[in-house]
Amino acid sequence: MATTHIFTDEEVNANPEVKAVFDDIRATRGTDFVNNIWRALAADPPGLKRTWENVKSLMASEGAIDPKTREMIYIAVSIANSCSYCVHSHTAAAKARGMSDEEHGELMQIVALAASTNHLVTALQVPVDPEFQVM
Amino acid sequence: MATTHIFTDEEVNANPEVKAVFDDIRATRGTDFVNNIWRALAADPPGLKRTWENVKSLMASEGAIDPKTREMIYIAVSIANSCSYCVHSHTAAAKARGMSDEEHGELMQIVALAASTNHLVTALQVPVDPEFQVM
Amino acid sequence: MATTHIFTDEEVNANPEVKAVFDDIRATRGTDFVNNIWRALAADPPGLKRTWENVKSLMASEGAIDPKTREMIYIAVSIANSCSYCVHSHTAAAKARGMSDEEHGELMQIVALAASTNHLVTALQVPVDPEFQVM
Amino acid sequence: MATTHIFTDEEVNANPEVKAVFDDIRATRGTDFVNNIWRALAADPPGLKRTWENVKSLMASEGAIDPKTREMIYIAVSIANSCSYCVHSHTAAAKARGMSDEEHGELMQIVALAASTNHLVTALQVPVDPEFQVM
Amino acid sequence: MATTHIFTDEEVNANPEVKAVFDDIRATRGTDFVNNIWRALAADPPGLKRTWENVKSLMASEGAIDPKTREMIYIAVSIANSCSYCVHSHTAAAKARGMSDEEHGELMQIVALAASTNHLVTALQVPVDPEFQVM
Amino acid sequence: MATTHIFTDEEVNANPEVKAVFDDIRATRGTDFVNNIWRALAADPPGLKRTWENVKSLMASEGAIDPKTREMIYIAVSIANSCSYCVHSHTAAAKARGMSDEEHGELMQIVALAASTNHLVTALQVPVDPEFQVM
Repeated sequence: MATTHIFTDEEVNANPEVKAVFDDIRATRGTDFVNNIWRALAADPPGLKRTWENVKSLMASEGAIDPKTREMIYIAVSIANSCSYCVHSHTAAAKARGMSDEEHGELMQIVALAASTNHLVTALQVPVDPEFQVM
Repeated sequence: MATTHIFTDEEVNANPEVKAVFDDIRATRGTDFVNNIWRALAADPPGLKRTWENVKSLMASEGAIDPKTREMIYIAVSIANSCSYCVHSHTAAAKARGMSDEEHGELMQIVALAASTNHLVTALQVPVDPEFQVM
Repeated sequence: MATTHIFTDEEVNANPEVKAVFDDIRATRGTDFVNNIWRALAADPPGLKRTWENVKSLMASEGAIDPKTREMIYIAVSIANSCSYCVHSHTAAAKARGMSDEEHGELMQIVALAASTNHLVTALQVPVDPEFQVM
Repeated sequence: MATTHIFTDEEVNANPEVKAVFDDIRATRGTDFVNNIWRALAADPPGLKRTWENVKSLMASEGAIDPKTREMIYIAVSIANSCSYCVHSHTAAAKARGMSDEEHGELMQIVALAASTNHLVTALQVPVDPEFQVM
Repeated sequence: MATTHIFTDEEVNANPEVKAVFDDIRATRGTDFVNNIWRALAADPPGLKRTWENVKSLMASEGAIDPKTREMIYIAVSIANSCSYCVHSHTAAAKARGMSDEEHGELMQIVALAASTNHLVTALQVPVDPEFQVM
Repeated sequence: MATTHIFTDEEVNANPEVKAVFDDIRATRGTDFVNNIWRALAADPPGLKRTWENVKSLMASEGAIDPKTREMIYIAVSIANSCSYCVHSHTAAAKARGMSDEEHGELMQIVALAASTNHLVTALQVPVDPEFQVM
């Protein structure tokens, strides 16, 4: 299933704009494997480029949060947004960056707990405590 | 605004079942301040007890993920579930556990990036790569 | 706050198409009070009429599910969709149809539990058991 | 997979109430093809009729917004609500009404951008500027 | 598809902590069939235990809301949270507890109606009527 | 309410990196008014810059979709993601780009209809028709 064509390597190589992004993905990640989201985005070269640049600048750069934790945060958001593909791809990425089975289990329990209190608070329409406000 | 009554300390103390939970919240957290979600849940003592026990066992115990990171994951889920109160309370909790301004900024950018690719993938209905599957 | 004007009774009465819907709301519900969603929809008379007819045909008619339970289902969906106004209005409606404090507490705990297992299942990407499939 | 039976044409024709709706779908759309949502709804004839009448009155009538744009808005909502079937069916419908590949690519980028700023704003809990308020 | 291993009965029996939970699931439900969510959670024994205890205490106990209605509320939340597995499993559970086809049809129409007015209210940013507020 | 400080013009002007983005926002939009999301993002200059560049490249450039329609799509996503601030700001932006009251009413009805069928389809777990698949 897909609403757009999934580009093969041959089709990628036929379009220099697309090929440049794929070359950068491969160089940045140090692997020949390019997963399907990029092959689906290839039908829209400017969208492919914008998306990759955003992903690269945040997920493949130095920063305040370590790479494993970044992927765990990505999983949490992808779960809450019900994105099956994203849960699969970022769980694989987090494991590749060292997430242990124990951390994975704990992550899922925290996400489930957060979801339950998110729904409780919305049910109760709890007013924000003045202590929590910056303004 | 609220769909239930927000219990004052006087009302809390009048119900031994509720008071026991509040005493444990105060002892566990080492502070007298008890925020509004617990005061709203107080109208349903078994629900209050179950919720607190779940929160305590995951957020106030030893585990594989450090306390600051747990709160950052909680924030990520609360954002994706659009829970204003939860974003406020867990941002305050994460800061209290050492989240720096730089980490907060990066967290929000990762959440926003994840949301954008979650939506892109759902738009494209990208099939899961066999490489990402455990089964 | 609002992105459209909230119609007063005077403004409602000045538009026969809008007035006819408001008359029907008042007659069907047996009260003069008309809440803000209808006053906000009044700027779009065909939308007002379509929305009211859908609500009336499902929520104010005989059917297989009793009126109190219908409102409790409505609350559950409104919580999951993070609609503050809807949680307020349907909690009031459920109480008016006999929802007890105990039922309200239990409803919120079930919603919170469902949210937590919804997120867990999405995290785990659990395959559907053949036993659950109709086709 | 499905939680209800998907009606075949033979089963549709056996129920006059269901057949009447299917005849109207075919006449309105000018095609014999009736997609699975209607075949799944056929188990509940009043629900089938209500849903079709709502869809027909908004999507197959004259109005202020052109048919292609309506379908593009439908896709945007279906993405944000994580409805795989709906993304597939309305992407096909939008293409049938003239959505170009360039428009499709741009639509997906706008949806992704909106999702990212939606999450950022919720993270930041930005107060609404007085300039944006109608009331 | 799955992001974790789905435990077979043999693997379950090899871990006493996991086996104890499975024994309790079987005894509580009065059936040997244990569905996939528990087999996926088995990789994280404390998470498995916590999740089952929460489900058992709310869904398999006496309370103010009858078992069939609880499952219908669970379905409503699972739909709004886009959890395919959960919709399948709780639709099966509700049918096992007596939900009729008519009730199922009506439930789906109420959920769909609630979703439509949830979105309308969010679009209109309707202010909460003072009549609906508890505080 | 806010989880970060909302920068005043004086504070913006004190940071050259932030000031440069604000200058570009003002020049691009042709107005001195800069709304609160940018003032909240100012605490994280790289995040502010990345967000503005994404918004500018998609919403303030030539493209296949006209500016008014882009804003209407943005509203649709913001409604489905329950972002109150975003609904306010993009409704104002769409009106400024020529959205009529009739178009606004129709947009909201389409969003509400899409939400209702999104939920119906998820409830029914309708299989995707082969006719809708690209692959």
